[in-house]
Amino acid sequence: MDTEVAPAVEAVAADIAEMEIRGAATIAGAAAEALATQARASDAGTADQFRAEMHAAASYLYDTRPTAVSLPNALRFVFQGMDGTTVESLRQSAVDAAERFQSQLDRAQDDLGEIGANRLRDGDTVMTHCHSTDALACVEAALDQGKDLSAVVKETRPRNQGHITAEQLRQWDVPVTLIVDSAARRYLDEVDHVLVGADAVAADGSVVNKIGTSGLAVSARERGVPIMTAAQIIKLHPGTMTGHTVEIEMRDEDEVIDPSEREEIGQITVENPAFDVTPPRYMDAIVTERGQFPPESIVTLMRELFGETSARPWEGPV
Amino acid sequence: MDTEVAPAVEAVAADIAEMEIRGAATIAGAAAEALATQARASDAGTADQFRAEMHAAASYLYDTRPTAVSLPNALRFVFQGMDGTTVESLRQSAVDAAERFQSQLDRAQDDLGEIGANRLRDGDTVMTHCHSTDALACVEAALDQGKDLSAVVKETRPRNQGHITAEQLRQWDVPVTLIVDSAARRYLDEVDHVLVGADAVAADGSVVNKIGTSGLAVSARERGVPIMTAAQIIKLHPGTMTGHTVEIEMRDEDEVIDPSEREEIGQITVENPAFDVTPPRYMDAIVTERGQFPPESIVTLMRELFGETSARPWEGPV
Amino acid sequence: MDTEVAPAVEAVAADIAEMEIRGAATIAGAAAEALATQARASDAGTADQFRAEMHAAASYLYDTRPTAVSLPNALRFVFQGMDGTTVESLRQSAVDAAERFQSQLDRAQDDLGEIGANRLRDGDTVMTHCHSTDALACVEAALDQGKDLSAVVKETRPRNQGHITAEQLRQWDVPVTLIVDSAARRYLDEVDHVLVGADAVAADGSVVNKIGTSGLAVSARERGVPIMTAAQIIKLHPGTMTGHTVEIEMRDEDEVIDPSEREEIGQITVENPAFDVTPPRYMDAIVTERGQFPPESIVTLMRELFGETSARPWEGPV
Amino acid sequence: MDTEVAPAVEAVAADIAEMEIRGAATIAGAAAEALATQARASDAGTADQFRAEMHAAASYLYDTRPTAVSLPNALRFVFQGMDGTTVESLRQSAVDAAERFQSQLDRAQDDLGEIGANRLRDGDTVMTHCHSTDALACVEAALDQGKDLSAVVKETRPRNQGHITAEQLRQWDVPVTLIVDSAARRYLDEVDHVLVGADAVAADGSVVNKIGTSGLAVSARERGVPIMTAAQIIKLHPGTMTGHTVEIEMRDEDEVIDPSEREEIGQITVENPAFDVTPPRYMDAIVTERGQFPPESIVTLMRELFGETSARPWEGPV
Amino acid sequence: MDTEVAPAVEAVAADIAEMEIRGAATIAGAAAEALATQARASDAGTADQFRAEMHAAASYLYDTRPTAVSLPNALRFVFQGMDGTTVESLRQSAVDAAERFQSQLDRAQDDLGEIGANRLRDGDTVMTHCHSTDALACVEAALDQGKDLSAVVKETRPRNQGHITAEQLRQWDVPVTLIVDSAARRYLDEVDHVLVGADAVAADGSVVNKIGTSGLAVSARERGVPIMTAAQIIKLHPGTMTGHTVEIEMRDEDEVIDPSEREEIGQITVENPAFDVTPPRYMDAIVTERGQFPPESIVTLMRELFGETSARPWEGPV
Amino acid sequence: MDTEVAPAVEAVAADIAEMEIRGAATIAGAAAEALATQARASDAGTADQFRAEMHAAASYLYDTRPTAVSLPNALRFVFQGMDGTTVESLRQSAVDAAERFQSQLDRAQDDLGEIGANRLRDGDTVMTHCHSTDALACVEAALDQGKDLSAVVKETRPRNQGHITAEQLRQWDVPVTLIVDSAARRYLDEVDHVLVGADAVAADGSVVNKIGTSGLAVSARERGVPIMTAAQIIKLHPGTMTGHTVEIEMRDEDEVIDPSEREEIGQITVENPAFDVTPPRYMDAIVTERGQFPPESIVTLMRELFGETSARPWEGPV
Repeated sequence: MDTEVAPAVEAVAADIAEMEIRGAATIAGAAAEALATQARASDAGTADQFRAEMHAAASYLYDTRPTAVSLPNALRFVFQGMDGTTVESLRQSAVDAAERFQSQLDRAQDDLGEIGANRLRDGDTVMTHCHSTDALACVEAALDQGKDLSAVVKETRPRNQGHITAEQLRQWDVPVTLIVDSAARRYLDEVDHVLVGADAVAADGSVVNKIGTSGLAVSARERGVPIMTAAQIIKLHPGTMTGHTVEIEMRDEDEVIDPSEREEIGQITVENPAFDVTPPRYMDAIVTERGQFPPESIVTLMRELFGETSARPWEGPV
Repeated sequence: MDTEVAPAVEAVAADIAEMEIRGAATIAGAAAEALATQARASDAGTADQFRAEMHAAASYLYDTRPTAVSLPNALRFVFQGMDGTTVESLRQSAVDAAERFQSQLDRAQDDLGEIGANRLRDGDTVMTHCHSTDALACVEAALDQGKDLSAVVKETRPRNQGHITAEQLRQWDVPVTLIVDSAARRYLDEVDHVLVGADAVAADGSVVNKIGTSGLAVSARERGVPIMTAAQIIKLHPGTMTGHTVEIEMRDEDEVIDPSEREEIGQITVENPAFDVTPPRYMDAIVTERGQFPPESIVTLMRELFGETSARPWEGPV
Repeated sequence: MDTEVAPAVEAVAADIAEMEIRGAATIAGAAAEALATQARASDAGTADQFRAEMHAAASYLYDTRPTAVSLPNALRFVFQGMDGTTVESLRQSAVDAAERFQSQLDRAQDDLGEIGANRLRDGDTVMTHCHSTDALACVEAALDQGKDLSAVVKETRPRNQGHITAEQLRQWDVPVTLIVDSAARRYLDEVDHVLVGADAVAADGSVVNKIGTSGLAVSARERGVPIMTAAQIIKLHPGTMTGHTVEIEMRDEDEVIDPSEREEIGQITVENPAFDVTPPRYMDAIVTERGQFPPESIVTLMRELFGETSARPWEGPV
Repeated sequence: MDTEVAPAVEAVAADIAEMEIRGAATIAGAAAEALATQARASDAGTADQFRAEMHAAASYLYDTRPTAVSLPNALRFVFQGMDGTTVESLRQSAVDAAERFQSQLDRAQDDLGEIGANRLRDGDTVMTHCHSTDALACVEAALDQGKDLSAVVKETRPRNQGHITAEQLRQWDVPVTLIVDSAARRYLDEVDHVLVGADAVAADGSVVNKIGTSGLAVSARERGVPIMTAAQIIKLHPGTMTGHTVEIEMRDEDEVIDPSEREEIGQITVENPAFDVTPPRYMDAIVTERGQFPPESIVTLMRELFGETSARPWEGPV
Repeated sequence: MDTEVAPAVEAVAADIAEMEIRGAATIAGAAAEALATQARASDAGTADQFRAEMHAAASYLYDTRPTAVSLPNALRFVFQGMDGTTVESLRQSAVDAAERFQSQLDRAQDDLGEIGANRLRDGDTVMTHCHSTDALACVEAALDQGKDLSAVVKETRPRNQGHITAEQLRQWDVPVTLIVDSAARRYLDEVDHVLVGADAVAADGSVVNKIGTSGLAVSARERGVPIMTAAQIIKLHPGTMTGHTVEIEMRDEDEVIDPSEREEIGQITVENPAFDVTPPRYMDAIVTERGQFPPESIVTLMRELFGETSARPWEGPV
Repeated sequence: MDTEVAPAVEAVAADIAEMEIRGAATIAGAAAEALATQARASDAGTADQFRAEMHAAASYLYDTRPTAVSLPNALRFVFQGMDGTTVESLRQSAVDAAERFQSQLDRAQDDLGEIGANRLRDGDTVMTHCHSTDALACVEAALDQGKDLSAVVKETRPRNQGHITAEQLRQWDVPVTLIVDSAARRYLDEVDHVLVGADAVAADGSVVNKIGTSGLAVSARERGVPIMTAAQIIKLHPGTMTGHTVEIEMRDEDEVIDPSEREEIGQITVENPAFDVTPPRYMDAIVTERGQFPPESIVTLMRELFGETSARPWEGPV
């Protein structure tokens, strides 16, 4: 079927593809809004045609970054809410769903932060890895609760996002000690809680996060330090419910070593995986805006949110 | 007592202090040789005077880098060998001891490499941390034994000595995969043996080595990968026999972050410990030129070498 | 609003505050009954006024012991059941809910005991910590099933509630060996199952129970002995679903050491925490009247019971 | 009550008892079908009489192998679906439920296989224990997905079902290495995934499977190798939700040792338990046709399927 | 043989038996001195007779408390030193050996304390169990080194020797927090080092110490807190070199529970083992006056001290 | 050099090669005796010629089974004892050494058994793997000490040496329960001690023993059951001191599966390693006739016995 996609959808898709729009929540919000735009703009004559257009728009958006977790979750949410037998009822329900999604999104990080903050105590030193706005939301909420916190910030090679984390924490007047990633185990003895984000969370309780998280989690367990993951529910990966594993992005080798320096060394392979996988037994809790969960139970929340299928609702027959 | 120290001793001491002479074995050799020079140059009239001069020379050398392990070990070796009741017999025995020490030193890395190589199997992939000539001697000996090896090389922030390791391995035609330190746990599943050096080895079986070693060892155990330390006996720290802990050098903060970048972040603390401590339960073997040992038994070798005391023989009463 | 609370409610509240009414189930039952009394006694003219009175009564009760877990759970249950648009329908549904709650409470310990007993085998020796009627209900039910049991009873300093446990077990003709708490690991080799109660159970699977439980659980895992917690659902702490931690009561220092003896020692600090926190990975099962759960899954039951919020329904707008 | 059971039901019961009908799924299907036959054949005059007949038939079937897990699960499913106030509506709903059950059963292994296959990667070597069609379904689906697999097959004493597994795998052209059970830990270093089936799965996350599974799982964890259980939902044991343990069959001693050889040894006891129990902490995932679950969360699925009771619906009052 | 024992020996033996002389070092010193007295007092006419008398005296002393470790070690030391072919040379060598033993004993605790202190850092909080002068010697030496220490003191039921420890620490102005034994795991998070003594140390690296030590050690490992044993070499148990286990004293039941309170409970067994056994894998170091050792290597020191036999030299043929 | 070897040596060598002479101790004894025979038979004219003959004889013997551990140990012992400058003194010292070796060998198993027996308690149930006369010597000595023992005997596929063990134990009236290897973890809960032998012991503390030992040891640790290795010192492998690993024999595939049965399955690989390697951290003690050792300390005994070299003394220059 030769179904048209609204120009605004194409624009959003382009922005996602070119990473003008980036960050799990921002992508998700933009995708839901794009579907609402499509719904509003549609001049479909029949319910079937309307649905076909919506499917086409969703597929179009989905194809821009098929490995992102939040994007299909946004699409799924809107399709779950779209219901009706007439164009008008479909349109209205889709727009409503998109707005509901956005509204939940707006609240999610605050809610999550509040919950994560409750796990922290006044006077705690937290260790961070990479830069996660979800994890930082927990710190911010704890500060708002009047708790004093300090931070040990791992620089997080190869891209040193720890520097961004350090800067944010300094803006909140949190004392920061910056260390190289390899120093983590040594400093765990001075740390009360490890706090990380997630790129994706799997049904088997695994946390996919910035490379280095799994080693940090193993050391935290060995040192007796609790560790939590802060992750909005848009990070929950429905495909993992049916056993799919999360694809790990291999990033540019130049992030690891400067090409000129590399040339001096000689013919070497450089590998730069963006993420690794932390098994649930090394993580104490996953904090979401819908409550905290032991990693082994996150599948319960996933079943509430997604049902049992990991199919993509926009791919079904019209 | 106003005892004179030979100019050659002063020169060596200066070179050590200014790190013109560096590396555990090089320092140790230079120190032993300096004592031999002192012995040869001495025009002491009495045995007591000779001894006093030797003590003074040793103390002078010792004070240049009191935290280095190999330096006092060299001094100790010479003093253990210096024996006699006349100036001449003392002189001769001291010079002999220094030569014996140097001769052992010359052989040590080869012997150690041979032993470590025996632990590796043909086709193994080894993971390295930092740059250790002792560890690399094991690889070289294994290659000489006709074994094929591959390597996963951790870059080893903050000074990226992994690059030197990679370059050396490439000169031996060993295939190298370079990774950031945080990627270690992920790549351990593709590794057969982890191979590290040591800055110092303690009587309680702890291995003091480049920051990141202890976290790597914990992950290696968790992943079921064997790990060994290659360390010449000049790395065995006598002071630890009497409970002393090895002092951990805090290095320049600029190694961790560029001052200008740091300024942008704001007021932060940066900590840059050079080493960390790996407990014996996470290390499978310590390989020395005198054989391999479970870390828990290295104290047996230390007692053979140093006796029971950790006193400095050159400090005793003349 | 100046809302009146029924005198009977005030009386119950006073009894709870003064610990005339004590024990999780007794408090919960009294609180629910007090709300029923308030409902019956109300002469509210409007539904809003009735609700306001109920809110006031609940708040009044709640404030007597805000750290008890069972009390707000009882209040919550009644408010979840209270429904209607008229005074009469609200009154009736509140009274019904209170009765339903009491009826479930009456049955809960028996049901729980039956489930816990099923985990025990004929001939088992169980180890107990402190005095928990929930845990003992499992023993009693196992005896009723015709199983022979023996017990190793930890005295449970500082208040020696193990003596009460021992007395109860002896009344059931269970052979008892009494030991000091420090002897637990030694006797675990002669024990088939460890059986403890709970003061509160958290959404992250942690069990808050009498001080010493967590060390016992760690040793039980190390010795290969299974361990279960017996806990009625009134012990499930809704606040932990949103990350709140359970506040640990610090009890009277005189329980730990007699003041006169203390004076002889000199100026010391004495700390006497009533409870500690056992992570889920050291507990095999939580047995409730609603079935048994791995600790990591208790959050599933909490969501069924409490929904997602940990808000106090009586605090909402009238 | 002297209720008649349809001859066809008696025939099926006899076949189950005599193990003409065997295998969890086959038994379950036959039992559901037998109930449908009973429903179709009934000439009951009243709804009560119809129900009584169905109860009698279910009880009759149940009594043939009360320790099988799948049989009562089949009966339960039909009774959950049987609903109505007239004979006709009861009959129809019972027949429909039986058909629905059969239809799910037909699909179950394929669905499960697909999910399990998603956990395997191209090039993986899997280790198997015993012979499980559920586990093999995962391998088959992975081959269908185009993945290349190799297998290390444990022979699985005493009955050497590993030979059957090996033969099946060879038919699919999977390279097979056969080893004795004791060689498992040694070969785990060459294995990417361990794959086992289940005889029963308990609410506390334990997996009851062929003797040797628990030791294998402990070694797999120690060696850092992931391990999964493939188990259709008819293996979930409702009785364990209320604490019941799964009875372990003790099989014929002659399977372990030939009587003549035994006689030569002298008076010995021989024990031949068919199954053992693997705690959830040594198992990474349970793969069912309804999705994958960490073992600690399988109780969530059990509550969805069975509700909270473990009572047998056919035993209730008519 | 009817050999006479000097009255002074009998007196010492009586004092040991009646616990007038108590404490491992005091007993050892008294026993060695008694042998010296016997030697001095002897009017034996032949070397054989002298030896027979010494054997008799040693046996007489040994029989007073055959389970004490230090007593036979003292006897052994004297016999190892007693050498000669004449009465006079035997006498002199025996007296010399006894004096050497006493002199080593006098120095031992100080030397040990110095070594243990080296493991502690300025600002450390140590946790103690029971009352051990060897352990306290480490604290005292650390204070002498100018380190500031705090202590968490376990009361150590049933005899509350923690109170004695607390009092001693207060005399040294060390801040003390007293807790019940069950609170240990909770407070380990605030502790930098656990410090215990030993009743006996076995060749397999096990530490026999006050009941509760092994559970504490397991928790310390789990919490990531280092733990050391302070034990003079008179605690090394030669019999364990040939596999003998250390007999664990069962103490008076009244220490555990007051008889009147016990009567109220009914017929119960009370068990009161004085010690338990900590496996080497949960202990970081054994600190002696001869240096520190990983527990797995203490057998090296035992072989140096005792040779290979665990026979009692005074039992040999005269 | 064309040195003649005594016919008696050739005969022994042939018997060893054809496994007429088998078992570690029997081989060792025969080899030492053969060297004595060579010494006695020699008509060498010079000390050098005598030594050359002895070297030739030793090399001839060694080459029969270069992977056996006890054979070179016997040769080494004789060469260590052979000393002198004349043919006669060399001859005598060699013969004496061979006799001393045999005499130690005769006593070794009894001494070892006594030591191992001391680790067992009256009433213990031991679990055995394979058939080890060293391990059984511990049982026998314990029975002689008047202890009652029971045994759980693993059949030990593929060659079922457990049957031999069972028969021996029955002759001593020890109650025996025979199980398949896979049942080990289940029965560990009823076992007090695991008792295994060794094929070889390595300097890094690893125990090389019958395939299945390492998995058993891992499960024993996990179940909290102590485990010991009984191994005469002829099992200590000198080559491992310099890092050499013990070569693992791959045995006949027909032991694993009958060729006809194999053919039915199709093209499969069968692997049948005779031994596996147990790391020291899973073994509590190695019991030798020279005392018991934590595995991490066995290197201490090896250094006493062999010195530092692993060279073969008969290969040195004449």
